[in-house]
Amino acid sequence: MKKLRGIIPPMITPLKGNDELDREGAVRLVEHMLKGGVHALFILGTTGEAQSLTYNLRYEFVELVLKQVAGRVPVLVGVTDTSLDESVRLAEHAKQCGAEGVVAAAPYYFAASQQELIEYYTALADALPLPLYLYNMPSHVKVFLEAKTVAVLADHPNIVGLKDSSANMNYFETLIYLLGDREDFSLYVGPEELTGECVLMGADGGVNGGANMFPELYVEMFNAAEAGDLKRVRELQHRIMQISGSIYTVGKYGSSYLKGVKCSLSLLGICDDYLSWPYRKFRAEEREKIRKALEALGCSCVE
Amino acid sequence: MKKLRGIIPPMITPLKGNDELDREGAVRLVEHMLKGGVHALFILGTTGEAQSLTYNLRYEFVELVLKQVAGRVPVLVGVTDTSLDESVRLAEHAKQCGAEGVVAAAPYYFAASQQELIEYYTALADALPLPLYLYNMPSHVKVFLEAKTVAVLADHPNIVGLKDSSANMNYFETLIYLLGDREDFSLYVGPEELTGECVLMGADGGVNGGANMFPELYVEMFNAAEAGDLKRVRELQHRIMQISGSIYTVGKYGSSYLKGVKCSLSLLGICDDYLSWPYRKFRAEEREKIRKALEALGCSCVE
Amino acid sequence: MKKLRGIIPPMITPLKGNDELDREGAVRLVEHMLKGGVHALFILGTTGEAQSLTYNLRYEFVELVLKQVAGRVPVLVGVTDTSLDESVRLAEHAKQCGAEGVVAAAPYYFAASQQELIEYYTALADALPLPLYLYNMPSHVKVFLEAKTVAVLADHPNIVGLKDSSANMNYFETLIYLLGDREDFSLYVGPEELTGECVLMGADGGVNGGANMFPELYVEMFNAAEAGDLKRVRELQHRIMQISGSIYTVGKYGSSYLKGVKCSLSLLGICDDYLSWPYRKFRAEEREKIRKALEALGCSCVE
Amino acid sequence: MKKLRGIIPPMITPLKGNDELDREGAVRLVEHMLKGGVHALFILGTTGEAQSLTYNLRYEFVELVLKQVAGRVPVLVGVTDTSLDESVRLAEHAKQCGAEGVVAAAPYYFAASQQELIEYYTALADALPLPLYLYNMPSHVKVFLEAKTVAVLADHPNIVGLKDSSANMNYFETLIYLLGDREDFSLYVGPEELTGECVLMGADGGVNGGANMFPELYVEMFNAAEAGDLKRVRELQHRIMQISGSIYTVGKYGSSYLKGVKCSLSLLGICDDYLSWPYRKFRAEEREKIRKALEALGCSCVE
Repeated sequence: MKKLRGIIPPMITPLKGNDELDREGAVRLVEHMLKGGVHALFILGTTGEAQSLTYNLRYEFVELVLKQVAGRVPVLVGVTDTSLDESVRLAEHAKQCGAEGVVAAAPYYFAASQQELIEYYTALADALPLPLYLYNMPSHVKVFLEAKTVAVLADHPNIVGLKDSSANMNYFETLIYLLGDREDFSLYVGPEELTGECVLMGADGGVNGGANMFPELYVEMFNAAEAGDLKRVRELQHRIMQISGSIYTVGKYGSSYLKGVKCSLSLLGICDDYLSWPYRKFRAEEREKIRKALEALGCSCVE
Repeated sequence: MKKLRGIIPPMITPLKGNDELDREGAVRLVEHMLKGGVHALFILGTTGEAQSLTYNLRYEFVELVLKQVAGRVPVLVGVTDTSLDESVRLAEHAKQCGAEGVVAAAPYYFAASQQELIEYYTALADALPLPLYLYNMPSHVKVFLEAKTVAVLADHPNIVGLKDSSANMNYFETLIYLLGDREDFSLYVGPEELTGECVLMGADGGVNGGANMFPELYVEMFNAAEAGDLKRVRELQHRIMQISGSIYTVGKYGSSYLKGVKCSLSLLGICDDYLSWPYRKFRAEEREKIRKALEALGCSCVE
Repeated sequence: MKKLRGIIPPMITPLKGNDELDREGAVRLVEHMLKGGVHALFILGTTGEAQSLTYNLRYEFVELVLKQVAGRVPVLVGVTDTSLDESVRLAEHAKQCGAEGVVAAAPYYFAASQQELIEYYTALADALPLPLYLYNMPSHVKVFLEAKTVAVLADHPNIVGLKDSSANMNYFETLIYLLGDREDFSLYVGPEELTGECVLMGADGGVNGGANMFPELYVEMFNAAEAGDLKRVRELQHRIMQISGSIYTVGKYGSSYLKGVKCSLSLLGICDDYLSWPYRKFRAEEREKIRKALEALGCSCVE
Repeated sequence: MKKLRGIIPPMITPLKGNDELDREGAVRLVEHMLKGGVHALFILGTTGEAQSLTYNLRYEFVELVLKQVAGRVPVLVGVTDTSLDESVRLAEHAKQCGAEGVVAAAPYYFAASQQELIEYYTALADALPLPLYLYNMPSHVKVFLEAKTVAVLADHPNIVGLKDSSANMNYFETLIYLLGDREDFSLYVGPEELTGECVLMGADGGVNGGANMFPELYVEMFNAAEAGDLKRVRELQHRIMQISGSIYTVGKYGSSYLKGVKCSLSLLGICDDYLSWPYRKFRAEEREKIRKALEALGCSCVE
């Protein structure tokens, strides 16, 4: 298997209401991102609100996306769960639908020690029918996949990469140092604000939420960094920071990022902005701020 | 509805293996606790490893316990979930099986703000077919149900109490101050080390894991504290601290408590000590330490 | 040396301005507390803003208080510092002025491991010219003095007690279990909301900030709990919670407690409410809320 | 005033024993770093163990270093303190000795809110006789200098830059976005593992502890990144990660970094490895590991 490199958007899950997919929106969003040149898709991650959805809806969404993508790019499916068996069950469904791999953060109710994480991920990778990408997401799962733990797990034949959303670059540089030369292990960065420098320093790509809205921008950043075009990297970085600073910071809570992405996609006419519990979509006032931010970025809003 | 008062053990979920109940063990454990005089049971909580179990197994366990209890004491069912709809679905099953109420900690993947928690719990309580007990469990769910939030939610007609596992007594005293006089709202304390003093100060009871093994002890503590028998409270407290200090502290990880309880129940001949992922049961060395601790407590181990 | 038992107010440091004591206010405050029957005084603790003061001012304050108290009650002096030698130097001054003991939280810039804390406190206790009380204050110093660490240190002949401000009652119950019977080691609780129950369960007293304003109340609580008068404990607890809920919760920051205490003392005509950096005293709006809270408690404000 | 750019080592404080400088070692270390081409020095920071030293020793060290440097490079002095007046007093001494600027992290006993930090730093910068560099060090001072706070403070005429030791690159990229174009405000990164990429993305330099031992290496990294020589950056990065991974990770505690730096300097014959409380220097076993790590890096150890 060849390494997957490039921009892999963590796709949002378009919803019309409680436990109801916005199927048309999902189709439009897939096409929007593929048209933008993304190298793969990652569904049912944090940005996909996976944990907030019923299992039935998650299964339905896997089917819908894989059918729509129809092999044009690889699709990775998030199977992060507190129950190992539920992770495996969802992975089997993902495989049947044609997914290329699965992604799993650590169990997020009980905090496991590093030794317990090694045992857990080994058991999971043994049981999974698809290659596994680790997902370091300490703010949400409470535990940090330490670099030494990742180095041990990287030797498992069915563990093929890691996405890091910690924003801790000491950690990511340590991973590049330990694993950057491996042909069978990929390193992706979550926060889009870091994709440029991470690729400059040796990362394989970015799993960047902003690519739901602006897929070309992040693809161009990946390409510029791959080519070592520092001047272009800095120009694109400025635009990426403008998005981050104006779209993800409306409202005062930790949910601003998710609300901002869904609200933007709604204003751009791509899909509904319904959010699953415990979050609610932006009200008129915040929506107006997002509209202005999009317009300042040169976008045309459809409503 | 009359307030539920007393000792409500958070029952462990006896397992034989991955995704397989120890049904005989579960029956023995129910009888052991009822014989010990407990006032109710709480299943599928943290001590019940609910989040680590598949949904199928959770549903099966609800049925099994409620059938075995057969109305002798009230049974509360944990429906804590990251998906509101899955919580409601499990609650409907619990109601059909005869449960008296449900218990829910905050969603534990996305951290919600206090305002979002109020909206979330209101929507949940509106949708649930059974009375809801709030569950403050910040170490596992990352958010704290602040006293002001609880005070707002306590006015919802379908929210009838709270279990606090924070061990923060400033918080619990604030709840007693704000809500202790309410006839329609109960306050329970999680950590068994605090049941004595909490009941002395006005709490309604304890949801104490040690009551899986030693139900009489915690029932006697509740009665002594209710009666204001300070001398007896201090004597019983000494024994409770001895259990806590010798059974829950073997091994070096946060999982010591759960492993200690299950290992003890196995040594006492009540049920299997299999633990669901990401935890593994104690190996021979730690098991030997638990055996010695039980013997020091005057227990006869069956193996 | 006989154990010190009872209410030991952590005295605020009355200030007129930056690096300037309110000497008259300090004298009035000492007399106010002694008149209220407190069993000892603790100066230069957290409530005393010690870390925010220059060393010169700290030395001056030690002299002033000890001269004013003139042996009527024991005085403990906070020597918490990031430099061991500065702690010792201040302790020598405290001894010369007539202090009975010193109090030290862990060094608060570098976080030390439990083993390092044992070595540090041993070296400190060896070097100090006065008996040392440990001070567990994890929210401010980032490290927790674990129960096992305290048990080791309690065997040092010059370490004679501990004040716990963690509000974690599992921890405090563990300390009572391990050390409650020792004639040469005292256990005090910091948060005044917990003094009643802690003394009921075996603690030696409370180091309660509210005793700056209402010394009789906390002394009465100590006496009621000592006597096992549960009914009176609950009545007093209600009043203590009313103070806590109305005086320490004005404003939105962590500094509300300190600002509330100093503002109250100013409104009661005892001393100035200047706060040292990084905090500022309440402005008119918050001051008005404190005034109303004091009036609701039956106090007469002088301005 | 022209911006200070390049490598500014946070100099360790060579000690012979408790409260006793290793004056000869300090002279050798200054000369070692200047010979290595560093652009400035920063003394009495975290790496300098400032908080663990008595004030007398801090004053003595400022005098010693400034006399030795004698204007060859600018010297910045850490004045981080919990007492604003002590910060100002030390800054006055630093100015008299010839320092170019001072550095201050937030007060580290009381946690201040962002609004309180703005007021605190404004008052500090008003009172200081030298330009002030902010220092974001959340792991040690408990508060984060948020990007918005920094942007406000950057408008103060006496606040001229910031050193960030958070390792959070989302934060640092936000600072570059907001302040990177300012001619009167500098941005430095603390962790040496990030100097390469930070300078590539627009930072002004690194305050890197490893430059105590290997000044040329970090200077070369700065130059390569300035020149956009990506190939060389990646080569140097590999060596920097090797140092980080072998010298700073011996022992199991958070103090490994400091112990590793001092032990290395001792093995290289530059200065004593005494550490101030609460830390102790490495014992023979760990020292041996450091020796092997240095030899693997091609260094000759003198003992």
